[in-house]
Amino acid sequence: MSLHVVLVHHPVLARDGSLIASTITNLDVHDIARSARTYGAASYVLIHPVEAQRQLVERILGHWEGGHGATRIPTRKDALAIVTQAPSLADAYAPYGGRSAVEVWVTGARPRQGKPSTDYPEARARLDATEAAGKAVFLLFGTSWGLAPEIVDDADVYLASIAAKIDAGFNHLSVRAAAAITLDRLRG
Amino acid sequence: MSLHVVLVHHPVLARDGSLIASTITNLDVHDIARSARTYGAASYVLIHPVEAQRQLVERILGHWEGGHGATRIPTRKDALAIVTQAPSLADAYAPYGGRSAVEVWVTGARPRQGKPSTDYPEARARLDATEAAGKAVFLLFGTSWGLAPEIVDDADVYLASIAAKIDAGFNHLSVRAAAAITLDRLRG
Repeated sequence: MSLHVVLVHHPVLARDGSLIASTITNLDVHDIARSARTYGAASYVLIHPVEAQRQLVERILGHWEGGHGATRIPTRKDALAIVTQAPSLADAYAPYGGRSAVEVWVTGARPRQGKPSTDYPEARARLDATEAAGKAVFLLFGTSWGLAPEIVDDADVYLASIAAKIDAGFNHLSVRAAAAITLDRLRG
Repeated sequence: MSLHVVLVHHPVLARDGSLIASTITNLDVHDIARSARTYGAASYVLIHPVEAQRQLVERILGHWEGGHGATRIPTRKDALAIVTQAPSLADAYAPYGGRSAVEVWVTGARPRQGKPSTDYPEARARLDATEAAGKAVFLLFGTSWGLAPEIVDDADVYLASIAAKIDAGFNHLSVRAAAAITLDRLRG
């Protein structure tokens, strides 16, 4: 299995459309690690350019790896064991041969200008085939108001946006919910 | 649409198997409201027997309904508008004719003793039929280590547990992730 779930904190969009680095949210680390681990991801990579923010994540992981949390909820350690960090996407891709050697998949509520999206049955088949070919797949999620356009435009696969069967006129899932649903659709 | 998503804080299981009332988690209110709203639920009901805990929820809702949050993230108000509260499940069922007039659906990682579970294709069809018949469906999720056995045993439908295609030897989703995935499977 070579599916890597990635949570991007920079570059992402702010509410006003500017590019920002968002702050680490404790429950994003936990919830998405548990979902990624349940659906057999090889790793869950947090991208943050600020070292102090990556150190915060190390402290969270330490609490559950060997601290009080490890005794209180032992299964949490198994989930958090797949968490890694990198200052940038390029750094995350590097151990797998760099950007040109991996597949980058994105999701999002916004359609890409003039480029097709991949529906889930097709994506499931492609994921199996890509993994069978020994290629790493990086599945990217954006915090805040979503991934920067430069990341979206660079992706190999743009997954169709998640939608309800009957449009309820509201589509603002949390990144924790969106990651869980996407993993279930790809690997459930 | 008469699907009601319910988050139960009492009676639920503690890690040691005893019955407890768990505390309200702010992100459970937000994330599950957003998922419930996206998938067209009529309401999202929080069950807590302790009045001080229900007041805490009212303060959270007030912040997003008319406080600073309403200006900062206006869409959050739309999601939280479907949140209601009740001290017990009986109180939640009462406006819909009481327990005997509604359908109670539960999910969970543990199979019920000698009773069958319903898979998702069957559950989707049953949900449509039940709603078409004008009957309210209450979809229950448990906090902490899950719903008390008395609630599970009393349910009309026990949904098959969520599982990955390939068993990764770990199945500990957060209640926020489990609710999102279940709603997507029923209404995605």
